[in-house]
Amino acid sequence: MTPETLPPEAEADTGLLSPVRAGTPVEAAVGDRAWLQAMLDAEAALARAQAGLGVVPKWAAEAITAAARVSNFDVRALALASRETANPVVGLVRALTAVVAAQHPEAAEYVHSGSTSQDILDTGAMLVSARALRIIRADLHRVAEVLGQLAATHRSTPMAGRTLALQAVPTTFGLKAAGWRQLVLDADRRLALVEESGLPVSLGGAAGTLAGYLEYARAADPATEVDPGGYLDSLLAAFTAETGLATPVLPWHALRTPIADLAAALAFTAGALGKIAVDVQTLTRTEVGEVFEQPVTGRGASSAMPHKQNPVLSTLIRSAALQVPVIAAGLTQCLISEDERSGGVWHAEWSLLREALRLTGGAAHTAVELADGLQVRPERMAANLALTGSQVVSERISAVLTPRFGRAAARALSTRAAATAATTGRNLAEALAELPELEGVFTAAELTGLCRPEGYLGMAEPLVDRALRTGPAATG
Amino acid sequence: MTPETLPPEAEADTGLLSPVRAGTPVEAAVGDRAWLQAMLDAEAALARAQAGLGVVPKWAAEAITAAARVSNFDVRALALASRETANPVVGLVRALTAVVAAQHPEAAEYVHSGSTSQDILDTGAMLVSARALRIIRADLHRVAEVLGQLAATHRSTPMAGRTLALQAVPTTFGLKAAGWRQLVLDADRRLALVEESGLPVSLGGAAGTLAGYLEYARAADPATEVDPGGYLDSLLAAFTAETGLATPVLPWHALRTPIADLAAALAFTAGALGKIAVDVQTLTRTEVGEVFEQPVTGRGASSAMPHKQNPVLSTLIRSAALQVPVIAAGLTQCLISEDERSGGVWHAEWSLLREALRLTGGAAHTAVELADGLQVRPERMAANLALTGSQVVSERISAVLTPRFGRAAARALSTRAAATAATTGRNLAEALAELPELEGVFTAAELTGLCRPEGYLGMAEPLVDRALRTGPAATG
Amino acid sequence: MTPETLPPEAEADTGLLSPVRAGTPVEAAVGDRAWLQAMLDAEAALARAQAGLGVVPKWAAEAITAAARVSNFDVRALALASRETANPVVGLVRALTAVVAAQHPEAAEYVHSGSTSQDILDTGAMLVSARALRIIRADLHRVAEVLGQLAATHRSTPMAGRTLALQAVPTTFGLKAAGWRQLVLDADRRLALVEESGLPVSLGGAAGTLAGYLEYARAADPATEVDPGGYLDSLLAAFTAETGLATPVLPWHALRTPIADLAAALAFTAGALGKIAVDVQTLTRTEVGEVFEQPVTGRGASSAMPHKQNPVLSTLIRSAALQVPVIAAGLTQCLISEDERSGGVWHAEWSLLREALRLTGGAAHTAVELADGLQVRPERMAANLALTGSQVVSERISAVLTPRFGRAAARALSTRAAATAATTGRNLAEALAELPELEGVFTAAELTGLCRPEGYLGMAEPLVDRALRTGPAATG
Amino acid sequence: MTPETLPPEAEADTGLLSPVRAGTPVEAAVGDRAWLQAMLDAEAALARAQAGLGVVPKWAAEAITAAARVSNFDVRALALASRETANPVVGLVRALTAVVAAQHPEAAEYVHSGSTSQDILDTGAMLVSARALRIIRADLHRVAEVLGQLAATHRSTPMAGRTLALQAVPTTFGLKAAGWRQLVLDADRRLALVEESGLPVSLGGAAGTLAGYLEYARAADPATEVDPGGYLDSLLAAFTAETGLATPVLPWHALRTPIADLAAALAFTAGALGKIAVDVQTLTRTEVGEVFEQPVTGRGASSAMPHKQNPVLSTLIRSAALQVPVIAAGLTQCLISEDERSGGVWHAEWSLLREALRLTGGAAHTAVELADGLQVRPERMAANLALTGSQVVSERISAVLTPRFGRAAARALSTRAAATAATTGRNLAEALAELPELEGVFTAAELTGLCRPEGYLGMAEPLVDRALRTGPAATG
Repeated sequence: MTPETLPPEAEADTGLLSPVRAGTPVEAAVGDRAWLQAMLDAEAALARAQAGLGVVPKWAAEAITAAARVSNFDVRALALASRETANPVVGLVRALTAVVAAQHPEAAEYVHSGSTSQDILDTGAMLVSARALRIIRADLHRVAEVLGQLAATHRSTPMAGRTLALQAVPTTFGLKAAGWRQLVLDADRRLALVEESGLPVSLGGAAGTLAGYLEYARAADPATEVDPGGYLDSLLAAFTAETGLATPVLPWHALRTPIADLAAALAFTAGALGKIAVDVQTLTRTEVGEVFEQPVTGRGASSAMPHKQNPVLSTLIRSAALQVPVIAAGLTQCLISEDERSGGVWHAEWSLLREALRLTGGAAHTAVELADGLQVRPERMAANLALTGSQVVSERISAVLTPRFGRAAARALSTRAAATAATTGRNLAEALAELPELEGVFTAAELTGLCRPEGYLGMAEPLVDRALRTGPAATG
Repeated sequence: MTPETLPPEAEADTGLLSPVRAGTPVEAAVGDRAWLQAMLDAEAALARAQAGLGVVPKWAAEAITAAARVSNFDVRALALASRETANPVVGLVRALTAVVAAQHPEAAEYVHSGSTSQDILDTGAMLVSARALRIIRADLHRVAEVLGQLAATHRSTPMAGRTLALQAVPTTFGLKAAGWRQLVLDADRRLALVEESGLPVSLGGAAGTLAGYLEYARAADPATEVDPGGYLDSLLAAFTAETGLATPVLPWHALRTPIADLAAALAFTAGALGKIAVDVQTLTRTEVGEVFEQPVTGRGASSAMPHKQNPVLSTLIRSAALQVPVIAAGLTQCLISEDERSGGVWHAEWSLLREALRLTGGAAHTAVELADGLQVRPERMAANLALTGSQVVSERISAVLTPRFGRAAARALSTRAAATAATTGRNLAEALAELPELEGVFTAAELTGLCRPEGYLGMAEPLVDRALRTGPAATG
Repeated sequence: MTPETLPPEAEADTGLLSPVRAGTPVEAAVGDRAWLQAMLDAEAALARAQAGLGVVPKWAAEAITAAARVSNFDVRALALASRETANPVVGLVRALTAVVAAQHPEAAEYVHSGSTSQDILDTGAMLVSARALRIIRADLHRVAEVLGQLAATHRSTPMAGRTLALQAVPTTFGLKAAGWRQLVLDADRRLALVEESGLPVSLGGAAGTLAGYLEYARAADPATEVDPGGYLDSLLAAFTAETGLATPVLPWHALRTPIADLAAALAFTAGALGKIAVDVQTLTRTEVGEVFEQPVTGRGASSAMPHKQNPVLSTLIRSAALQVPVIAAGLTQCLISEDERSGGVWHAEWSLLREALRLTGGAAHTAVELADGLQVRPERMAANLALTGSQVVSERISAVLTPRFGRAAARALSTRAAATAATTGRNLAEALAELPELEGVFTAAELTGLCRPEGYLGMAEPLVDRALRTGPAATG
Repeated sequence: MTPETLPPEAEADTGLLSPVRAGTPVEAAVGDRAWLQAMLDAEAALARAQAGLGVVPKWAAEAITAAARVSNFDVRALALASRETANPVVGLVRALTAVVAAQHPEAAEYVHSGSTSQDILDTGAMLVSARALRIIRADLHRVAEVLGQLAATHRSTPMAGRTLALQAVPTTFGLKAAGWRQLVLDADRRLALVEESGLPVSLGGAAGTLAGYLEYARAADPATEVDPGGYLDSLLAAFTAETGLATPVLPWHALRTPIADLAAALAFTAGALGKIAVDVQTLTRTEVGEVFEQPVTGRGASSAMPHKQNPVLSTLIRSAALQVPVIAAGLTQCLISEDERSGGVWHAEWSLLREALRLTGGAAHTAVELADGLQVRPERMAANLALTGSQVVSERISAVLTPRFGRAAARALSTRAAATAATTGRNLAEALAELPELEGVFTAAELTGLCRPEGYLGMAEPLVDRALRTGPAATG
């Protein structure tokens, strides 16, 4: 109970408090060691880019590339050292220089040449994000595929459409699944936009003028005039080629478009998956029972109640969906970043960005499991649809009566019949049959037909068809 | 002091607490009356769309269109009535029906035919948003244009680049202005994406199956079979044509992509303008004095201090930039919307969306004034750049000395000289000249040349050129 | 459809998009006119405070007090003028001076003497907040009272306790209502803390030194030495006495504790009410039907579906609960306020604070209606509790069997029986009776007794008693 | 560059992206292993509490206590297992049972007896929070102490008070430091309130009725009647005694007051420290230079610029201050938690709470270093105050001239003189001396005296005295 019982090295976060991402592929892709490797990749790519332009010797770039492996570094030591300079790159450069020097002392001269911490950290962040987005999008594609199959299979499976917590009018489970799929496609499209255009290298030097890079280029060959504009284009081209990232218009040390774009697309994705999760939870309720998550031995077990099979996958997804939008707001506010580089605003981004990637990726991975195993129970859907004795088609009755009675009177008749059905527990068709105004207007069979919930699906089926014609690349 | 002193009708918000948008064009475009007009526009467009398909008589659609003018309605009464049904549309339909009936009793039968509150409110919200985006984007274009001129004019005007609050290396004011412009273009591009694809009509009926629309179509002509899929396509096409809005893949009552997209793009825009505002404030500081807002009689006056000319435009913009990202987070969380329509999540969006539009639009409008009148003082920039006796080029000295001394020694020499300059207040060139290691390496004139801040602009000028080649339509 | 159709004066917000607060008492208490009156109250109180200290003539203070009535001012004109100075006080001082001068030209000399915009706006904000908190707390007291009655009435009414969307073990509706009440008391306590200590006058002068106040005091009586410390105490005492607000330790122009405290307490209150709202919605679901909101003619009507009686009050409350926490985050971030007064951070607070007060107050007012009219259906609770054939007591069976079989075996037996009950639809008691391991251990009657859900209420009833002993003043 | 280069076990977060807390005491106190230990502490305390009531054998409670040491567990394995049940406790109970069983098979029967996951996780969270708050508050006390010394030392050190980015009127550095201290005391007071009343044990059983605890108590001694109310009191008393935590009124599985309270107090604390950080950064600016962070070898070094000594401590603090408020908003929204336990809302809290504790604690620890080493330069303050040629006292001149000329004319004179001073660069006293209206009114010496910035400190000094009389326990 006392602080003395705290273990040494208690500081690490290994996922205990974040089951939605513990052990998922995205977790490894964005962990401290992955981030460190990405920053090392940025240093090595920079050296190779400069080597291609004759500013760094090829053998030095090769030595730097060889040294730039995460296994050569102590990530915790770098984390601790980061407090002295407010970012981990100063310590990383020192450590990388030492590793290079141990193998090739002369090559050590060329580590981080003309560069600045933010170029390395931001480029590393984009590499990590690119890797994470690939993982997330592959999971979204799988989710969309499975939801598409569910939508097709249940194109015509009637269920209650629910609004403001109450049964409203019938719909089909296929249309619900098609809606979920549409949100997943929307998310994928937004992530694709970021992937396609929004993950640039960072190359600005100390304050966004690339002056250091230029000066080292001049120093490398004092005899030759270096044209700033030409060298800018060459260095950008070489660095983007080495990293596989996009080319920015300007150094973005204080123009944080790429971060804000990532934040928005990740928040969208987590929120979209959250919509699916709350729907699954609602339909899983004991009193509803229309879908349930695939039973897997041990999964969903309660620590207390043997009869429960908790919807854990939707629970995990929802936990992420509640976190990412506020985290994204934190990132978006970092657009308000003063000067050529901010003291604090930039530094607030790193951990938030990693968390947004990790939670969204965990949610997407969990959504694959959820969709793959989702069990649908059409018989419960039908039973629930029958619960209100066809009140669920009261809208239809209003419509059908309108041409004969006028809208107000039609609605009044429909309301009276619905009230009778609600009070007596009898079917709306019977209640309608007893209305004196309807005497002789409909046969009992016609009323029964009008009141069949499964006969009032509106355009649910063509809507499913319409949605399934939309592929992964379409916009919402 | 007591509640009794409160006036009647104290409830309205007319902008007193939100100067950033008080009286700007966007304020009128998104006010209650504009929103009401947009919902009336939606009702009228729906009637005309149904008239084109033979479901509503043409004369009825004309009567509804004629009645659907905001001047026929009491917006406060509708606001008060909205509490009974949790949204303003039920009361609006009742009031519109009465207005139509007063002129043309039979036409009243056709108001809101087959429709549901959310179709009208969401379509209205998209109309309002479309109008607001046009206003905002026009302002952004003007801001970008003026900033482009500033960037070109000051392409080579030296100033201190500042990082973590300190002078770092020289840059040019043109590059700073080009960066601001780039953010504005990025914002415009994100709003354009939403405008182009993201503002769809809402057409779902009670629970997203359009069943009511279909039933009324059948009731209008019982003799003819109505094909659901065909009628879906026809009605969507007619409604989008009447409104000028986009076609959704599916009803989006509970698939809130358009709202989340608006939220993200508006938060980006406000944040981007906020970056410009904090930079202007920093450069306006009494001790810095490099830019100031255009003096206008009465503007920026302090209630107490005659000597002050407050930077009020950047203050207003910043006040919006701090609000929109958290408001946007509230909107993004509304993606987690249960069932076919949520009881509460949808309702949380309306006021947040209006506020995001209004604040962002106010900020954009204010940014036009800010950019148009921004005064630049190159002589103060030069004076500040001279403040540290050329320490601001210490990076350059390291680079220049590296080929001869190796990196570590070069950096040590540069550090020693910078420390001497800092302690003694003398110029870095003099401090370097006294270093025994440099004896005979450079002439005094060479050192003076190396230490001229305006000689160490890196690639600032070609970066300005590069940025100015990017037009309003390009992505960031 | 075109901007031309927009009406003049479309800008005002009269509640159309925010039904949760439209027409509620808090709305009038925090509207623009109320805010303007509060700022006028602050000006008048300041003049009277200075008059009491001999710095302003009594007749001048009286003239200022007489003039300081909102009906003398054009709030929209002040809103428009606020753009020139980034706050509405400069224009207000000008207008107040004119109103005073029209009646008593010499008194006009004493308006706003030694003061600054922020003193007036912040003091006004505290007056508005104090008035709003009184309204909100009175509503919370009523909600707590009614919930206390519900808890007492239904102390022993069995219902299913639900966890992770599934029926878990039985509870009572009284315990649920007692929990809701506890949250309301917690909210009230947090608002009370703010009311008691957190709503101070603002009195700092231009930059928090009160130098202007001191200088005018000296100027009023050049012959007498004014002691700064003594005058500080006197002026603070007089101003707090005139306003009824609290005394701050220091001027808080840039120390925003009172705003952050309000934000936190309001977000808590809205969130607490939101918990009640989502519970009511869940229990109202068609398939659950255990509570419903009081039917009132016209309330909860759907625009399309005659049979629906939407839970509109819980919908309204939930809409507020989703907005206030993010708005509060925006306010909390305004703690990061640079210098003696910030350019933008302060200005971001006003509208957010009003919205937080208004939404929370609207939610509290709506919660009174919700609680007052809540209909409880014990028979549906019993029916739902019977739905799973007593699986809902599986935890109890594990406990009962543990002493005889050991925990693991007991749980295995309970699980087997629960699975049989789930598969066959028979009661858990029957399933247990068939287990060979239990042969001769229990009689059928004993098993039936053990499996009665209403016999497994745990400590629900004494928990209700315990909670009801806690009054409005206790902490949570 | 490819995913293949990712190392195994890349998933852990060891602080690389969060220097503000890397290696600080709070980090270890809230890490995964500390959290696991706290949950084990909860299990052991529960067993001992039940042992004290005769429900669990004393030897079993001892065996459980002995086993409940984090070194017996694989935290990563538990994290991975947590995905199956959506929380880490089910796996933890299994693992703890195994560890106990290995030493004392019969004792294993008594692990987690009658309990539920949420009781353990929430009690553990409160233990962790209590430990973290102690650490944070100790750091805040030290910060307040040092700031108090700074305030006393510089009680009368003149500096420019700045508003809306401009020099406004003089103040003293002592008053600024006293304001910072006041915010720290406010934060401490808010954390103290949470510590004193807000960190309760969680004891509810499966759905908040404690039925399982009661049933095991009955099973332990079937011969004795167990009174639910009496056992409730006894078990609560025993569990709180064993844990040292507070007693809740009701089980709070879905009544999340303690979490919301922690969120609010932590956001306040981080924001308060952020205010100090941005002020330090502003005063550190190259052009201002009034304070700087203590130079420490290696600290604040730039990776590129030898001359820079970055304000890294304020940068770190600010990075935390920007993150915690949005994280707190996420936690506050978790108040909207449906049912007796939510599926997802509860799960969203854990990681956010840890991050809020960790960032705030890191910021507080960093603030100790910042305050301890803060260097103040009165000579730069004086020089900056002289920059505007006494325009900074223009407010005073207006006040002084008012009795003779009337307010409007006085202000006009002051404005004219200030404009002359601004244009000519001469001192305000000279500009005043040239005004014909003032001929013969003041001597040159009198004007010089009136215009001395250090003579216009208002009540700054008695305000410092007033603030320093406020101790750590006072409210703001």
